Amino acid sequence: MEKNLTTTKYEMVEMCFPGPTDGNPFLDVVFQAEFTYLNRTLYVDGFYDGNGIYKLRFMPDSEGVWKYFTRSNIPCLDSIAGQIQCLPAKKGVHGPVRVHNTFHFCYDDGTPYRPVGTTCYVWNHQPAPLRDKTIQTLKSAPFNKIRMCIFPKDYEFNKNEPEVFPFECSESGGFDFTRFNPKYWRILEECIRSLEELNIEADIILFHPYDRWGFSGMDVQTDDRYLKYTVARLASFRNVWWSFANEYDLMTSKTVTDWDRFFQIVQSCDPYQRLRSIHNCSGFFYDHGKPWVTHCSIQSSDLHKAEEWRNCYRKPVIVDECCYEGDIDMNWGNISAEEMVSRFWYGFVGGIYVGHGETYINDREELWWSKGGELVGESPARIAFFKKILDEAPEGFAPLIREWKDRPLMGVEGEYYLHYTGTRQPSFRRFELPENAEFGVEIVDTWNMEIQKLTGTVSGNVTISLPGRKYLAVIFRRVN
Amino acid sequence: MEKNLTTTKYEMVEMCFPGPTDGNPFLDVVFQAEFTYLNRTLYVDGFYDGNGIYKLRFMPDSEGVWKYFTRSNIPCLDSIAGQIQCLPAKKGVHGPVRVHNTFHFCYDDGTPYRPVGTTCYVWNHQPAPLRDKTIQTLKSAPFNKIRMCIFPKDYEFNKNEPEVFPFECSESGGFDFTRFNPKYWRILEECIRSLEELNIEADIILFHPYDRWGFSGMDVQTDDRYLKYTVARLASFRNVWWSFANEYDLMTSKTVTDWDRFFQIVQSCDPYQRLRSIHNCSGFFYDHGKPWVTHCSIQSSDLHKAEEWRNCYRKPVIVDECCYEGDIDMNWGNISAEEMVSRFWYGFVGGIYVGHGETYINDREELWWSKGGELVGESPARIAFFKKILDEAPEGFAPLIREWKDRPLMGVEGEYYLHYTGTRQPSFRRFELPENAEFGVEIVDTWNMEIQKLTGTVSGNVTISLPGRKYLAVIFRRVN
Repeated sequence: MEKNLTTTKYEMVEMCFPGPTDGNPFLDVVFQAEFTYLNRTLYVDGFYDGNGIYKLRFMPDSEGVWKYFTRSNIPCLDSIAGQIQCLPAKKGVHGPVRVHNTFHFCYDDGTPYRPVGTTCYVWNHQPAPLRDKTIQTLKSAPFNKIRMCIFPKDYEFNKNEPEVFPFECSESGGFDFTRFNPKYWRILEECIRSLEELNIEADIILFHPYDRWGFSGMDVQTDDRYLKYTVARLASFRNVWWSFANEYDLMTSKTVTDWDRFFQIVQSCDPYQRLRSIHNCSGFFYDHGKPWVTHCSIQSSDLHKAEEWRNCYRKPVIVDECCYEGDIDMNWGNISAEEMVSRFWYGFVGGIYVGHGETYINDREELWWSKGGELVGESPARIAFFKKILDEAPEGFAPLIREWKDRPLMGVEGEYYLHYTGTRQPSFRRFELPENAEFGVEIVDTWNMEIQKLTGTVSGNVTISLPGRKYLAVIFRRVN
Repeated sequence: MEKNLTTTKYEMVEMCFPGPTDGNPFLDVVFQAEFTYLNRTLYVDGFYDGNGIYKLRFMPDSEGVWKYFTRSNIPCLDSIAGQIQCLPAKKGVHGPVRVHNTFHFCYDDGTPYRPVGTTCYVWNHQPAPLRDKTIQTLKSAPFNKIRMCIFPKDYEFNKNEPEVFPFECSESGGFDFTRFNPKYWRILEECIRSLEELNIEADIILFHPYDRWGFSGMDVQTDDRYLKYTVARLASFRNVWWSFANEYDLMTSKTVTDWDRFFQIVQSCDPYQRLRSIHNCSGFFYDHGKPWVTHCSIQSSDLHKAEEWRNCYRKPVIVDECCYEGDIDMNWGNISAEEMVSRFWYGFVGGIYVGHGETYINDREELWWSKGGELVGESPARIAFFKKILDEAPEGFAPLIREWKDRPLMGVEGEYYLHYTGTRQPSFRRFELPENAEFGVEIVDTWNMEIQKLTGTVSGNVTISLPGRKYLAVIFRRVN
């Protein structure tokens, strides 16, 4: 039996194979394939998708012929060979995101990727109309990454019962943790695919503490089987990232050793080595410096620590929870739009990346941060404006040495400098630029979304007049 | 020779005595007096005021007869006896300010004093018309304390040469540091007196680093003589406080041992034990915990450290430099009015006190922070509003235990609670009040200066609806 298929670079190909339905296929059947391209072989786990169907998913990262060959403890699934013809990537498809230049990211084809993320923890667990609304909102939003959970969430404003769960219901009530529920996973995959179409990275949260069903306290075998099944199903989506937890430090049933094991399981099973991170609540008890952690995923309100984190971990830093724009009681969910936007800018001048979230209460308790739906805040428009300037910044931008910690300057020496005033309101500001180069000057009102280009050029020590308002940036761009 | 005088409690009485003019009276003449009231004796240094006149100044703090007797190495100034009849204090005169209740202050008669200060470092060094303007401004401003320097200031926006100096000019150029210039001191005293009439405490800065004349690098003998002369002239003004330095840590010529000695000189010479503090620039290298430091005078932008400072020093804390409302390049001088006002409130909920300053640039380079003149910012009106609420708070208000550090609650348990939202914008907020008492509720818009009293009372666990704006306070006042 041989299947010959065609796909394009970075586009997942899925193969279905009939197999046994007796016993517990999730436990009993081993099904894997080797995908070989020239002298490189990737080992890809298949998975049982219910109804006697076993699947293999594969995403080629190189054009040409990939040969595959299956291995299984079930004869009809074993030793199946075939090949996949991988054509050039479709226009606009740049591949999965990788770490690039120590502190930054790029797509697999080298195109820079600069994360401007948001958070909708369990949008995928909501009814279809609300999921559709979320996708509609994302179409016109500036975000190119979203944090979302595999497990449902039990928390204030999150008491609605999901329609389906990752595991089958048990006949005795509760869940049968030895059987996954393919219906659940197909919805999740549909969500991931919708994001992929919008060029949004899905930062998939594998564990989290907000639980009334038992998913945060599964036993070791179940945890590990769950991780392997997740990787088998999802790793081949080019926009998947692995976030091992939201707020691991609130998950009292897991230890640092557990998190190490989880990272190592995914590291060894994931043929594509998707990005891996773990997100804290209050402290960095898990060391972002460990070799299997690809980048820092941080909860903190203190963007002024950007340099400290960069210097400590020598990895890209994403503060994907810096509080949310909103109006709820809890202080993590009631910063103003101005504050949210300024945190993006403070991150930028610190050489790191920041994530958005929104928690305005409404009668339906549909808060974007958790359920998705609609965005009503004032920050997304400003984040879109920010993103344009972020995307224009030269590669390798970094915080630069400065006299005063509270006068951040970033850029690339001699080429590009960006200063952000934040909540300060200077009517003039002095800069020391190189003497031997000339720079064009732009004054950016980051809140009102206006850019004023000054006529002429400057060099050396200059004083720039400013409108004496908050939230301004000054950009110096070398012109000759 | 005997002089019998009458004064009122807390009102300085000044006595003039003719004496020698030959040699250097500032160095050669010892002149002191004992003031005895019942079984208490205060030792008061006199001083030479030029033109052959020696003066004694005394401020009685008790009604009745004070007897005095002079001591001098000059026969005509020695053994002069007399008495002062001290009548009750004039209406509205409450005496000098003391530490009260560990973390707070009161006037000598027990009336609470809650500092709401400002800074005009060298307003007293400006020409008379500008000094008058400063006093006019202070008449309608909310401030009851002002930081000001004995020595002139050399700094950006502070390049004008003073008309007179604390020391006489030397015939060979520069200053004769062995001779004080009474003309200078009389202007200073006129300034202190003007402040006294407005019930404004004069927080007199004895040393500071911004100097082109040599006052920051005088020798040990000159420093010590200067301190004793200053105490002899100024200690009897009931509104004088001693601030040993502005930014002592920038004065490279002085060591911790020097500051210790300065404190000890003033402590031993000042018969009234006026308040003593020392103001830092970047760090607390000098220990506010030393016994001769009566309260903390702090420069910091981080009002969230209020409790830390209280717990560390167990003294009143005044952050009299938390940056200034203004628009200059330097970040210590360009916070917004909103930020300035919020820092007062953050201090309040932390159980400490905060000071104002203003640095809006103008063509005359008359920035309030240094030269006085006019206030143009938006914070003073809000600080006046704040002051009313501060003055209403019960004695002994203190930060209270709370779940989240960023949700400050202060007050007096069971009687009064005040919460401040700061830059957060919750549309509702939950509080846990005592079950067995009823509280009236006020929602205070600290920026728009409006107070909304809710009808009825609350107790126990309550949710208070809020307008979802920044800078609100919620006050619960026990009604029964």
